[in-house]
Amino acid sequence: MDAAPPIGVSERLCAFLVEARERALPEEVRAAARTSILNVIATGIAGCTDPAVAISLQTMAPFSGTPTAHLIGRPEKVDPMLAAFLNAAASNVHDFDDTHLRTIIHPAGIVVTAVLAFAETRKVSGEDALTAIALGMETTCRIGNAVSPGHYGRGWHITATCGVFGAAVAIGTLLKLDEGKMCAALGIASAQSCGLVETLGFMAKSIGVGSAARGGLTAALLAEAGLDGPKKPLEGPRGFLQVTADAPVFGEITDGLGERWEVLGNYHKPYPCGIVLNAVIDATLELITRRGEASREATKITIFGHPLLLQRADRPSVATGREAQVSAQHAVATVLVSGAGGLDAFSDAAVADPAVLALRPRVTLVEEAREGIDGVRLVAVFPDGSEETVVIEHALGTTHRPMSHGEVEDKLRAIAARAGRYPVEELIAALNAIADSPDIANILPLTLPLEGTHA
Amino acid sequence: MDAAPPIGVSERLCAFLVEARERALPEEVRAAARTSILNVIATGIAGCTDPAVAISLQTMAPFSGTPTAHLIGRPEKVDPMLAAFLNAAASNVHDFDDTHLRTIIHPAGIVVTAVLAFAETRKVSGEDALTAIALGMETTCRIGNAVSPGHYGRGWHITATCGVFGAAVAIGTLLKLDEGKMCAALGIASAQSCGLVETLGFMAKSIGVGSAARGGLTAALLAEAGLDGPKKPLEGPRGFLQVTADAPVFGEITDGLGERWEVLGNYHKPYPCGIVLNAVIDATLELITRRGEASREATKITIFGHPLLLQRADRPSVATGREAQVSAQHAVATVLVSGAGGLDAFSDAAVADPAVLALRPRVTLVEEAREGIDGVRLVAVFPDGSEETVVIEHALGTTHRPMSHGEVEDKLRAIAARAGRYPVEELIAALNAIADSPDIANILPLTLPLEGTHA
Repeated sequence: MDAAPPIGVSERLCAFLVEARERALPEEVRAAARTSILNVIATGIAGCTDPAVAISLQTMAPFSGTPTAHLIGRPEKVDPMLAAFLNAAASNVHDFDDTHLRTIIHPAGIVVTAVLAFAETRKVSGEDALTAIALGMETTCRIGNAVSPGHYGRGWHITATCGVFGAAVAIGTLLKLDEGKMCAALGIASAQSCGLVETLGFMAKSIGVGSAARGGLTAALLAEAGLDGPKKPLEGPRGFLQVTADAPVFGEITDGLGERWEVLGNYHKPYPCGIVLNAVIDATLELITRRGEASREATKITIFGHPLLLQRADRPSVATGREAQVSAQHAVATVLVSGAGGLDAFSDAAVADPAVLALRPRVTLVEEAREGIDGVRLVAVFPDGSEETVVIEHALGTTHRPMSHGEVEDKLRAIAARAGRYPVEELIAALNAIADSPDIANILPLTLPLEGTHA
Repeated sequence: MDAAPPIGVSERLCAFLVEARERALPEEVRAAARTSILNVIATGIAGCTDPAVAISLQTMAPFSGTPTAHLIGRPEKVDPMLAAFLNAAASNVHDFDDTHLRTIIHPAGIVVTAVLAFAETRKVSGEDALTAIALGMETTCRIGNAVSPGHYGRGWHITATCGVFGAAVAIGTLLKLDEGKMCAALGIASAQSCGLVETLGFMAKSIGVGSAARGGLTAALLAEAGLDGPKKPLEGPRGFLQVTADAPVFGEITDGLGERWEVLGNYHKPYPCGIVLNAVIDATLELITRRGEASREATKITIFGHPLLLQRADRPSVATGREAQVSAQHAVATVLVSGAGGLDAFSDAAVADPAVLALRPRVTLVEEAREGIDGVRLVAVFPDGSEETVVIEHALGTTHRPMSHGEVEDKLRAIAARAGRYPVEELIAALNAIADSPDIANILPLTLPLEGTHA
């Protein structure tokens, strides 16, 4: 609490943000922002009918303003504040969205949904949206770095607590706030920063996430209108960093701004489960590729993995889909049965499936020295005594093998196909052309199910 | 962080809340709730035109739902969620509202405004409103006790961070939530708890306070609709108490529920300044009573006070109304000039008034051993060599001499008279009869200025 912050962390961040938006961001940063929109819409379609979203919509709709804003994946319209709230909640509800590996923040949902909602109130070009989303996510991740690991460890749901700043910055960027007002937006965001780890596993989690998107949007609009805030909202003695971290690292926010991009350390999730399971699922899918349906006949399957895999996911017996998200035994069994590692593979129904239950006890985890959690070795033994060994060095959706834009497109296709009938190819084409779009208000309507076909 | 909480803090609190609402609360508790409504409306009228409120209204009105809810003191109507937000902000913006002395929480504003807004969505009787307000404020103060003093010391704006729970409980009481849903309401409130001390002195403070009222209202409605939350939102390992306090005292929440009432330790403020100045203002007013206008001729005025008075308020030179709220020198001078210690006495104009500036240097503070901060000795020396000594043992608005209901009525009268023309006597009569009211929706319309007369 008493470490003296360097002068002007907030000031320097705001100076960068105001300057950076005036020139083209690096191509890979813009590409990351574009893929993030795609991914947020994919997981938003997956989450939009979850009870946390449905109950929130039903409860808050009576207080909605003029319904000018679209929800991802659902036909109802609401006011833009509520749209940001519900879309952020939907995109994150299954934790199927993305992961900034240094902090375990899911940064895109809150920022992207705030921008999409704002774009239904004022005309926003695709190029401006990409800039705003990149700068917003960068802000979220850098603030997250500054308070990690103590912040999450203490119990703050870092996706929400830091996300409100990112949303405020994204909207402040679109509003072209000057440095002083951008700082006010951060201060107003700080007054709304919330979210507790205790709520994870419950619908209440989504209320923190939704509040962050709405709060960031609100903060930027209030700052534009002249509402003031503290001069050092981040580094001040009773400001966000000092209050929510025991030893904030101020330089994480200001060092290498514009040179090192944290958004490039954000990875989209191929599977709706703990990231430690990515390599396990990849290995199982490869086993199926090699042995086909006979894979299910394996009498013993051993997963040799990083110590962290065993710590987090050695759970031979789980009862719900949510618990199954961190069970390697379930992951192997469900993928063997269904041939895929999507939402259905981690549902309550999958956990109760007799075929999955029959396979689960055959799976054993063994610790093995490995460089990272992104690799495993799988050894399957078959009734004829033959063995099949699969080695995954770098799982899909991790540092060395991030999902490509095309793979995220396929994720969207798979999610949309499961949810109902959507104009997926038209949506993908529009997103891929977003940099040339004069007005991105065309995007959200393309996320809606084709009439009368919602699953 | 590692102290094991007793089993079921949240559970025991919810059991009490659900049981207590079914029987009449003690008469003094009900009376405290009634006076709190009066005081919240008084300070709400004082604050409703503050820029923090005006800018918030202007910015958020375009997103408002059906305008069925009234604002305190202003003619505009908005949706009930926004009304709770703006009314809570208005009631607290000048810190002229109330103080729970053990925690320095201002507990009433957030709870009362949530209840008044809710009462414009469903019929609420005066008796039920008093019960809900008392239980809500009690929850706010007890949670505040459990995290004090570390919570505020670290930088949490305790009025807002704890207030969201009180608002959720008040609305949950009106909704007659069962124990499980009341616990869910606490959990959903915990996901929205926010507010930082760094924002004090800026308009951003009011966004935290407004969010607490809206968030509590939202939490209870979501819980009613079936949105779930953690089983131990307060005491869980990553729940509110453990995350926001280094050594939470769990018993403060559960001990003596229904026997010891924290709401009885809440005091309404007679003057819009730091509570340490109450005795200083009382002494100056008494000097005027004795010496009349000649009081201003005093050549030297010495205030002998508690060490805390000197620590907090020995500020011979201040530049703004906000700073003046903690300057004893200004307090004496402005009261001598204006004859009153109201909002005008702590305005920027009062600080710049040449008459006040001329008197200020004649005031000196001297430390004196005293039992509490609620007493001072004032010695004034006049040009003829005579002296006048005033001793205040217990200042108005402190433990031994709380403002009576009638004095709060007079506070409302003074505030309303300053703000414009209001139907004050009708409003007071309605509030005084609230226990017999079948529907309190008549209250807020009586807080509006008479047509065309807003100052």
